[in-house]
Amino acid sequence: MTSLLIERPLPHGGRLVERVVRDKEVAKKMIKGCPTYDIKPTLHFETGVPVRNVYREIMSICYGFFSPVEGSMTQAEVERVLKERRLLNDWIFPFPLVFDISKEDYKKLGVTKGDRLVLNLKGKPFAILDIEEIWEIDDPERFAHRVFGTPEDNPEVVRQRFDKKHPGWVIYRSLQPIVLAGKYTIINEPKFRPPFDRFWYPPRKCREKFDELGWRTAIAHQTRNVPHVGHEFLMKNAAYTGDIEPCHGILVNAIIGVKRRGDYPDETIVEAQEAVSTAGYIKPERRFVSICLWDMRYGNPLESLLHAIIRQNMGCTHHMFGRDHAAVGEYYDMWATQILWTKGIPSFGFDKSPIDIPYGVQIRPQNMREFAYCPVCKEMAYSENCGHKREGISGSLLRGMIAEGVQPPSVIMRPEVYKVVVKWWKHFGYPFCNEKYVRDKERDLEVELEDL
Amino acid sequence: MTSLLIERPLPHGGRLVERVVRDKEVAKKMIKGCPTYDIKPTLHFETGVPVRNVYREIMSICYGFFSPVEGSMTQAEVERVLKERRLLNDWIFPFPLVFDISKEDYKKLGVTKGDRLVLNLKGKPFAILDIEEIWEIDDPERFAHRVFGTPEDNPEVVRQRFDKKHPGWVIYRSLQPIVLAGKYTIINEPKFRPPFDRFWYPPRKCREKFDELGWRTAIAHQTRNVPHVGHEFLMKNAAYTGDIEPCHGILVNAIIGVKRRGDYPDETIVEAQEAVSTAGYIKPERRFVSICLWDMRYGNPLESLLHAIIRQNMGCTHHMFGRDHAAVGEYYDMWATQILWTKGIPSFGFDKSPIDIPYGVQIRPQNMREFAYCPVCKEMAYSENCGHKREGISGSLLRGMIAEGVQPPSVIMRPEVYKVVVKWWKHFGYPFCNEKYVRDKERDLEVELEDL
Repeated sequence: MTSLLIERPLPHGGRLVERVVRDKEVAKKMIKGCPTYDIKPTLHFETGVPVRNVYREIMSICYGFFSPVEGSMTQAEVERVLKERRLLNDWIFPFPLVFDISKEDYKKLGVTKGDRLVLNLKGKPFAILDIEEIWEIDDPERFAHRVFGTPEDNPEVVRQRFDKKHPGWVIYRSLQPIVLAGKYTIINEPKFRPPFDRFWYPPRKCREKFDELGWRTAIAHQTRNVPHVGHEFLMKNAAYTGDIEPCHGILVNAIIGVKRRGDYPDETIVEAQEAVSTAGYIKPERRFVSICLWDMRYGNPLESLLHAIIRQNMGCTHHMFGRDHAAVGEYYDMWATQILWTKGIPSFGFDKSPIDIPYGVQIRPQNMREFAYCPVCKEMAYSENCGHKREGISGSLLRGMIAEGVQPPSVIMRPEVYKVVVKWWKHFGYPFCNEKYVRDKERDLEVELEDL
Repeated sequence: MTSLLIERPLPHGGRLVERVVRDKEVAKKMIKGCPTYDIKPTLHFETGVPVRNVYREIMSICYGFFSPVEGSMTQAEVERVLKERRLLNDWIFPFPLVFDISKEDYKKLGVTKGDRLVLNLKGKPFAILDIEEIWEIDDPERFAHRVFGTPEDNPEVVRQRFDKKHPGWVIYRSLQPIVLAGKYTIINEPKFRPPFDRFWYPPRKCREKFDELGWRTAIAHQTRNVPHVGHEFLMKNAAYTGDIEPCHGILVNAIIGVKRRGDYPDETIVEAQEAVSTAGYIKPERRFVSICLWDMRYGNPLESLLHAIIRQNMGCTHHMFGRDHAAVGEYYDMWATQILWTKGIPSFGFDKSPIDIPYGVQIRPQNMREFAYCPVCKEMAYSENCGHKREGISGSLLRGMIAEGVQPPSVIMRPEVYKVVVKWWKHFGYPFCNEKYVRDKERDLEVELEDL
């Protein structure tokens, strides 16, 4: 007898975190006389290749994507996150987030708790960190294992011990030992370079956009890929969930961050995703593309929890999850994310689904199986419907085809999507991220900063 | 924080009505010495063509499809149904259901309240009616208008005054004046003739079948049609709703009853629907076909409410509704059913959706828009997704094509479905119901009865 209509959820933790000072005069006063530190990329502990840039975390925290997280975590908070996947305020959260520096830099800086540190990005003041605590990561390898779990400690979902082939594990393994914990505040808003600028919908703006479009219900689609028709079908079909009618909208949220060689460039990803709507496969009134800055940890169930939090903060009522969500390799069970959202993963602190526990999330999961092309059904058929032999789309095969200059058949990739791939191929000289792209990306990032 | 998992609803009214005596000795005792009456079809008030057979209502009531209705309604109950669409026990119900006889038959029978009347079907004892009240329909035309509504009284959804071109209105207009009100009990179970026998899943058996298939959630699909690919897409896509995952199953429930010339034969409908699953377009583990006996009233929003009640009783958690649900002509707004399920129709007694009111239904609506073939998307595209020019499938055009012996293209009708059309075409000599079929159907009905 209560209405079945699903309303937009509150932000995770009850309110949106917004730690952005827009008044330059105020900002200048805030940083006056404070020590400064130039943000550096996290470098691979063995190869020295950049694997993370903490500026992305600062952006996502200060614009509220990660609400209710407000900064770099204290040791007690990290401990609780690792043990129970909860913040000290009880709200669930999957990953430790820290501002880490080397011992040398720490010595040079000479800061202590209570100090305000100005963080420079690309040589310009960007944010401040009000230091509440300084602590040390004594064993980054053990730390990394605790973040992702082990087959012994997390037998429900961890199938293989994490190692340096896992890019998320490498990020934690590569952290510098000294953590400056405390709240971040952006005091000089970066400007996104095209094409990223038009996809920048931080949570408040995103919620306003939903109002503008008249969306009560919206389902989130996680991506870091150029969409093939299988992805399009996952989106369209998962979106038929809702309440008494299908979801009003589909929010594509692309995770933008550190790239590996062979990934599609982020520019290609966002514009190719956009093309699905501009070309009319899913109308722009029903779907738009947005970005979130984050160096993917590939934490499958844990990553899905972060995704849920991000998109709940953006205003979505639902989140679709497919097979091998945010996964790499076979470290986790291929259905680990669905296990989390269906019954919970006790060893990670979830006796039940994160939607069914106190201080859990409010966004609703839509757990989906697989789509693959069926020549009898003549469509991207759903594994639970189609009783014929289907042809899975192998991402690697598709990339191989593209690298050879072969346009994939339109049942596999929409021609308008392929056109975007070609556009950026011409721009970068190669359809996928090569060493130059990865290097330039890390140097230039996605943003420019003005003087304060 | 309560689980989002949707559980199978209770029957409408709290418990399944089951009024079937299976012990022949008991049955014989029950009817000993009682007056008998041979069930007659309701004949069109002008043309004399059969338009209804009350045996179908007796079947649907006694096997619990119409729970909590237990028999032919008293005058007070009919009045309440017409005014508030509620039974005297407060549970909502859309249509008056009565056992009507002519004044001549009434005189001949000489029954009064308290009498038990034995109802014969095809010359065999079939059911009993324990008479609680005898009342008279004084103005069947006014009665019929009250059943369906008028543009003046129901401006939210009625667009045109009902008349004799509306087959449901004709049924009520053609009722005999004397109503024998009281509970029905089947005392001699009819046997369905093939192919109907294998589609007979009365509510209890249907719920057991769901258990067997492991379906927690199931969405109902109303049909009285041979499925074209548009119908298949409506089914498949509406079924992606559910709770934290798509519905586990799709229950196709075909309304079997009086036919009009040009309809598909019921035999064709049930086997063509079955072919969608046996041919692997929607696996048999995920979808099965069932029947319910009822002479369609084509009451669009009111009919949708009956459908919801029937399928809630059968155990479904969801019911899909499309455009012009159970409609004929343009008497109702083409979205009248969605209006009912979205916000209610106050003039019919529903200030809110029937899911949001006391003594309402528990099955959840899935309000869908339209599917049509899009040559760009290369699929039956959903009107809310596809931004291209789509080709709607005209049922009449498709029938015309079939009548001319042209096999429809497989993007419009699956070849396995067409094969069923041809099979029964050979059997009946014509792909659609002709006069002979309609006449034979009314004489033979769907069942055989043994001696008691």
